[in-house]
Amino acid sequence: MLYVTENYARGMAQKKRIASPRVVARLILYRRLLREMSSRGIGCIFSHQLAKRANVTPDQLRRDLMNIGSPGSPSRGYRVKDLEARIEDYLAAAGPQRTALAGLGDLGRVLLKHASSCGGSLRIVAALDEEPNFMESHLDGCPCFHLDETAQVVERFDIEAAIIAVPGVLAQSVANRFIEAGVQSLLNFSDSRLRVPPDVFVDHMDIDISLETFAFFARQHAPLKS
Amino acid sequence: MLYVTENYARGMAQKKRIASPRVVARLILYRRLLREMSSRGIGCIFSHQLAKRANVTPDQLRRDLMNIGSPGSPSRGYRVKDLEARIEDYLAAAGPQRTALAGLGDLGRVLLKHASSCGGSLRIVAALDEEPNFMESHLDGCPCFHLDETAQVVERFDIEAAIIAVPGVLAQSVANRFIEAGVQSLLNFSDSRLRVPPDVFVDHMDIDISLETFAFFARQHAPLKS
Repeated sequence: MLYVTENYARGMAQKKRIASPRVVARLILYRRLLREMSSRGIGCIFSHQLAKRANVTPDQLRRDLMNIGSPGSPSRGYRVKDLEARIEDYLAAAGPQRTALAGLGDLGRVLLKHASSCGGSLRIVAALDEEPNFMESHLDGCPCFHLDETAQVVERFDIEAAIIAVPGVLAQSVANRFIEAGVQSLLNFSDSRLRVPPDVFVDHMDIDISLETFAFFARQHAPLKS
Repeated sequence: MLYVTENYARGMAQKKRIASPRVVARLILYRRLLREMSSRGIGCIFSHQLAKRANVTPDQLRRDLMNIGSPGSPSRGYRVKDLEARIEDYLAAAGPQRTALAGLGDLGRVLLKHASSCGGSLRIVAALDEEPNFMESHLDGCPCFHLDETAQVVERFDIEAAIIAVPGVLAQSVANRFIEAGVQSLLNFSDSRLRVPPDVFVDHMDIDISLETFAFFARQHAPLKS
């Protein structure tokens, strides 16, 4: 679950009138669904059909698409390729982010594979770890370095963003290294909350909290049936 | 990012007046922070202090705590142990969910470790996979079975919920097996949207979408500085 810093998102929305994180996440989902339809030769779709596949209400879908000035009309339907292109324009205008991954444990390796297969808006160009036994020169095509080399790696690879997948006790010190090296955007997968200067963008993606939130709603669900 | 089925959450909220998924996720975070404070001997905390650690506004924190009828006063502060106990009561009233994990690839193994360490509201009691080379009798203390044995495993281990961490192309058929065996709550980590009967609770946790959402906001961030 992503928690975008509230003040940050508000400030950004005022300056650039961009959508909220939840809208952006849904747009990414719509784009994926439209790509699938496009590859299966589907030319046209009505909003209620796309809404059903995305598991949102048709109203929600239409509001999301209005946010980005979508082509097509809700009553006549959307051309799949046009809508896909419009969402792509909105999402990927500035090209892929050059990203470093810190932490090559199980989770880090999963993220490395996901990032290399998830469509290219985020490109992990260097990986860092502190355990010598995880150090290989390349992993899934990505060059690997020791965390002590963070500053040099940021400069050499022109790193703009970093993903933190180290244990919670290390997360803050790793974040500090990136920030000192000039990285302005951090995605934190550890279970520690990071403290960062106000001009740094940080997002938290906490698997434990996702699992526990699911457990809570699953528990509520069972008694509902009776 | 978790997407709770909208109609489901609305229906449940009407019936039981429970909090939204985002509130629940924040309560889980507050509980974790309070546990840390408690273990460090901190006896009392003001709402603005806890809010700062959780990266939410003080207003947001007070509204969340009002949802669960929290003890203590915003002006005098909260007793850490009392507040922790109240949140615990709210979150864990019905005991741990007996959960099966489908998929023992890299992501499945990460989830197995997280679930066993994340505090116990979700307990993975059996794991399933279809690849014979992943089949071991036990993994991290959890018994492993072939996906063909889904129905027997659900009955034998009294499974209430399932986590799906298989590749997207397999996700729907695996979900169908669980549903046919009577499992009513699914957490889907694959990149396929599941279609389920209206009485089944499904939540999607899509790492690709989380990575791409982060990439979008990280891209927006850089030009903001200039």
